[in-house]
Amino acid sequence: MLGKVVLEEAFALPRFAEKTRWWASMFAVNPDQHAREMLDINDIRIQYMDKYGVGYQILSYSAPGVQDVFDRKEAEALATEINDYLASTIKAHPDRFGAFATLSMHDPRQAADELRRCVTQYGFKGALVNDTQRTGADGDDMIFYDSADWDVFWSTVTELDVPFYLHPRNPTGTMYEKLWAARKWLVGPPLSFAQGVSLHLLGMVTNGVFDRHPTLQVVIGHLGEHLPFDLWRINHWFEDVKKPLGLKETCKKTIREYFAQNIWITTSGHFSTPTLHFCLTEVGADRILFSIDYPFEKFEDACEWYDNAEINEVDRRKIGKDNARKLFKLPAFKDCDV
Amino acid sequence: MLGKVVLEEAFALPRFAEKTRWWASMFAVNPDQHAREMLDINDIRIQYMDKYGVGYQILSYSAPGVQDVFDRKEAEALATEINDYLASTIKAHPDRFGAFATLSMHDPRQAADELRRCVTQYGFKGALVNDTQRTGADGDDMIFYDSADWDVFWSTVTELDVPFYLHPRNPTGTMYEKLWAARKWLVGPPLSFAQGVSLHLLGMVTNGVFDRHPTLQVVIGHLGEHLPFDLWRINHWFEDVKKPLGLKETCKKTIREYFAQNIWITTSGHFSTPTLHFCLTEVGADRILFSIDYPFEKFEDACEWYDNAEINEVDRRKIGKDNARKLFKLPAFKDCDV
Amino acid sequence: MLGKVVLEEAFALPRFAEKTRWWASMFAVNPDQHAREMLDINDIRIQYMDKYGVGYQILSYSAPGVQDVFDRKEAEALATEINDYLASTIKAHPDRFGAFATLSMHDPRQAADELRRCVTQYGFKGALVNDTQRTGADGDDMIFYDSADWDVFWSTVTELDVPFYLHPRNPTGTMYEKLWAARKWLVGPPLSFAQGVSLHLLGMVTNGVFDRHPTLQVVIGHLGEHLPFDLWRINHWFEDVKKPLGLKETCKKTIREYFAQNIWITTSGHFSTPTLHFCLTEVGADRILFSIDYPFEKFEDACEWYDNAEINEVDRRKIGKDNARKLFKLPAFKDCDV
Amino acid sequence: MLGKVVLEEAFALPRFAEKTRWWASMFAVNPDQHAREMLDINDIRIQYMDKYGVGYQILSYSAPGVQDVFDRKEAEALATEINDYLASTIKAHPDRFGAFATLSMHDPRQAADELRRCVTQYGFKGALVNDTQRTGADGDDMIFYDSADWDVFWSTVTELDVPFYLHPRNPTGTMYEKLWAARKWLVGPPLSFAQGVSLHLLGMVTNGVFDRHPTLQVVIGHLGEHLPFDLWRINHWFEDVKKPLGLKETCKKTIREYFAQNIWITTSGHFSTPTLHFCLTEVGADRILFSIDYPFEKFEDACEWYDNAEINEVDRRKIGKDNARKLFKLPAFKDCDV
Repeated sequence: MLGKVVLEEAFALPRFAEKTRWWASMFAVNPDQHAREMLDINDIRIQYMDKYGVGYQILSYSAPGVQDVFDRKEAEALATEINDYLASTIKAHPDRFGAFATLSMHDPRQAADELRRCVTQYGFKGALVNDTQRTGADGDDMIFYDSADWDVFWSTVTELDVPFYLHPRNPTGTMYEKLWAARKWLVGPPLSFAQGVSLHLLGMVTNGVFDRHPTLQVVIGHLGEHLPFDLWRINHWFEDVKKPLGLKETCKKTIREYFAQNIWITTSGHFSTPTLHFCLTEVGADRILFSIDYPFEKFEDACEWYDNAEINEVDRRKIGKDNARKLFKLPAFKDCDV
Repeated sequence: MLGKVVLEEAFALPRFAEKTRWWASMFAVNPDQHAREMLDINDIRIQYMDKYGVGYQILSYSAPGVQDVFDRKEAEALATEINDYLASTIKAHPDRFGAFATLSMHDPRQAADELRRCVTQYGFKGALVNDTQRTGADGDDMIFYDSADWDVFWSTVTELDVPFYLHPRNPTGTMYEKLWAARKWLVGPPLSFAQGVSLHLLGMVTNGVFDRHPTLQVVIGHLGEHLPFDLWRINHWFEDVKKPLGLKETCKKTIREYFAQNIWITTSGHFSTPTLHFCLTEVGADRILFSIDYPFEKFEDACEWYDNAEINEVDRRKIGKDNARKLFKLPAFKDCDV
Repeated sequence: MLGKVVLEEAFALPRFAEKTRWWASMFAVNPDQHAREMLDINDIRIQYMDKYGVGYQILSYSAPGVQDVFDRKEAEALATEINDYLASTIKAHPDRFGAFATLSMHDPRQAADELRRCVTQYGFKGALVNDTQRTGADGDDMIFYDSADWDVFWSTVTELDVPFYLHPRNPTGTMYEKLWAARKWLVGPPLSFAQGVSLHLLGMVTNGVFDRHPTLQVVIGHLGEHLPFDLWRINHWFEDVKKPLGLKETCKKTIREYFAQNIWITTSGHFSTPTLHFCLTEVGADRILFSIDYPFEKFEDACEWYDNAEINEVDRRKIGKDNARKLFKLPAFKDCDV
Repeated sequence: MLGKVVLEEAFALPRFAEKTRWWASMFAVNPDQHAREMLDINDIRIQYMDKYGVGYQILSYSAPGVQDVFDRKEAEALATEINDYLASTIKAHPDRFGAFATLSMHDPRQAADELRRCVTQYGFKGALVNDTQRTGADGDDMIFYDSADWDVFWSTVTELDVPFYLHPRNPTGTMYEKLWAARKWLVGPPLSFAQGVSLHLLGMVTNGVFDRHPTLQVVIGHLGEHLPFDLWRINHWFEDVKKPLGLKETCKKTIREYFAQNIWITTSGHFSTPTLHFCLTEVGADRILFSIDYPFEKFEDACEWYDNAEINEVDRRKIGKDNARKLFKLPAFKDCDV
């Protein structure tokens, strides 16, 4: 399918080239290629897009990013630098690239202000933020965005009417030592990513973020970070047990209603047709968005899978492009109407 | 369907009646009924079994159980007491009840010895153990069973040729404070249970437990604690990224092969037909077992769902009884051949 | 779900009360009730609608209807009578009832004219016609609507911009004697209905009706009369074998494209959740419409199934009402926005 | 997967080489290749088997075959000739080839005798017969095998304990003229095949063949010739309407029970993963058999699809080989245990 839209796609700052290369060496089979693809924006990336029928891409700063910077000032300065860099770099191809704002999540008000700046000044399409902000003197603490402190931030997100992509972050500090160090192969896509994001998103649900901000649109990747699998079980316990015991104070709708009204899932890094079919049933094609997770995943794997996945042609188009066009109010782009 | 078999079904010790009632008050809508059902073995339980077509039940000690006892001696003594009590109590109905051994998991050798005693002396059908053993002076440490230290235990399990049920346990200590305290409604079935067990089981996979004990059979509940949803993604990262980087040292087969040869899932607490269908595709009916999770879940909800679930009649029988009969080498029981 | 829309719902003419009762005796377990429900429009029917959350119903004349009348003049007069009767009867509840035109299909031009009269004069929502028109001196011949002769009719349908519902008809004459007489229990819903309609609709596809009338919208019942099951196989043979041999002359798109652009399926008489899930994958929720097939099927069976069917809430609403509202440009009706 | 078994695989008699080539010209994109593959047994076929991991193949005479010969004597002689030829030809590779008997179906007793001869004398694995036997002076009549006249035949089939494969046949005579001539592109795999076989098999069900021969095992191809799609609807009408009206006289079990006890489906010519998943739910992996439909379908298409189809590894093995090994009591063959 031509004119696909993708939206969990990473880049890195050129001044961190060395660090990017070092980081890649920890998890990439071909670290050089990985680093090259991460640092590039207007060259290799567009070649891939053209080759595999991707019309438009929303870029976001790679993890571990600003959420790993536990010094507040440093984090805020870095986010601003990243946003300025991205805005200036993608100007070359406004018909191919959009951007998610990178935010320091140390302070809700500052995060809101920087998001507003990116959206109003640069036309960014929303924000992509990693699961929990490291904080504390030694970086062992974590800020979640699901407490009432963050209402000022979510109010700005909904006022700006842009989606928020909740992206995974690797466990650090005590969490890492207790749970992951002795089973390091599970860190990242095999397990820790989904565990972090699903906890955070359900925290937002049960702590009432969506009740207080009913128009908020949150996107999660990897076909929903395990959650669609358990919608029945979550709903059963929320409705039949937890609400009678008090959950109803902050969480008035059902989990299926939040999935119908506030939550989106993308195919990033999860190119499984049976799982996609299951999500058609449990989430619905109107709430699914194609994405790759480049350069952690390959354009080739994602696009050849999607273009040939055994689904009906109505939903292929919606998931592949039209849902994203509406949600992000995208401008015209290459093959957008094909 | 008559003659169903169920196997994640809890009981409590009579001498803990008061504690059971107090505990129930923390999560049960009707704590009195819950405590009564938990403490009963030969009365209410058999009435439910007769009413809802359950022929045979394998009992196990309720969580939080011995895995929450961080004093080693106390844990071992409690496990022995529980096993002796259960053996003597179910003697009244050998054609209706079997037992899973309760084990202290402070010491692999002692756990192995107690399992052997239960299997050889009492005819227990295997063991059901909760996810991680609390340990340490203040109970903040956790023992996982996925390190090489536990080979002596797994050798005994496979030598005795009995399955091992890995059951959830609530997060405690640091884990609880960091992740769950501020989002308490997610503790238990909505999220924390699946996160704990899936980490532990994949730890066993990646740390080589199944490679060193290729006949080991591990059962997990709740339709697989999220894992079937991500088999594609886990497989992709294990095979394409993690193995080239070294995972192949301890984990020689694919995740799908471990699911085909070593892992079983039960329907306990997850009465969702779409999810069951998805598991037919990703796990296969030969590896799925019906179960309830009584008294946390109701016989009525589980059995009426299962008896009417839209699946073919061949698999309904296998999942409902025949798989369990073979796996646990069950004796004849009520309606076992109907 | 309140405010559901249903659209394969039958009625009969009061002057045929006796015949309706006799006909019901041939297939209905309770013929009196069946006849009563068939003959009623404004009373029992609305009680059912209110009780089971149906906001709006499009009525159509029962089979065997005008398509069984092999005398042309008689058929045309009967169709006119039916349409006039229906228009006058449903006037009492314009916010609850719409109508499909009944048409004699002996002559394409006359059928087109009568449809135009019904749509422009009475505001009918489209036409529902049974599979093949009996014709010939002894009624043994059959008129299909898939030849070029019918282009004048299809041009009128698309000009009026109304959908066409292709409904089953029982086999008659030679067909009946050769195939069905010795296996009479298969006549109707178990088999013959789907065989007739699927042949007719694929005849329209392969004979180029949709290529010549690309905006034509055809609705079929019973979750697609077997066709979704075989989309892969049909597509494989059309694209890989039949088109190279000449099918491409009349049929330029793929079968999946016709299903995406021209064909709708309803749930009438097929209240199976696994089959609905399969259709979500192969047809897509945007092309599925809830319906009952009353009074051959019960409101209770259809509505309790649908309201509780395990699908996501976005699609439940689309299939249950919103797709129909758009397709048929329905007026406001009871609970239409709930 | 190595060692796959396939069982709807056609060959032709060498003396009909010219006719085979002419016939191929009517439907094959490459008639020369098709005829060559059809006439070959021990050469091209084994190369394909080796290349695509097929260990064992049960051969059957191509359609239109003996069921198109409306002269009884001619049909019987031809069947005998075919069986003798096949027995002598496959002797070269007893570890790769088995055979289905070809039968004239003019006379039940004679068909039974020829089947007995083939099974006892040659070790044939069962029979493959096409849907209805042409008969009558001009070949316009059809013999179905679902009447009580055929009990003598079915008794022999069950006594010999061999499966019966009910294979499609093209419509001929009146049927062809009335239904198919004007929509010729639907003849064969796109539609007519499934309509013929599903009618015939459900005729056997409703006319009581399986009640009178409860151990009879009938195999149908193409993932069940539409029937799995409608099991709910068939069951609903059989149980709720038809049985109260009299169907219970000849058909005592439910349609789902016949599918669980008497009916098998193969993947021949239907390489669709969503449809296979749906059949896992509605039919069950224990009743599904891999097959190709060679040379109408390619080894490459079938085997590459199957080897990579997204299903669990337990069922892949069962459907791919183990079910067939048990059902047909196959001897050891290449890679049978891999």
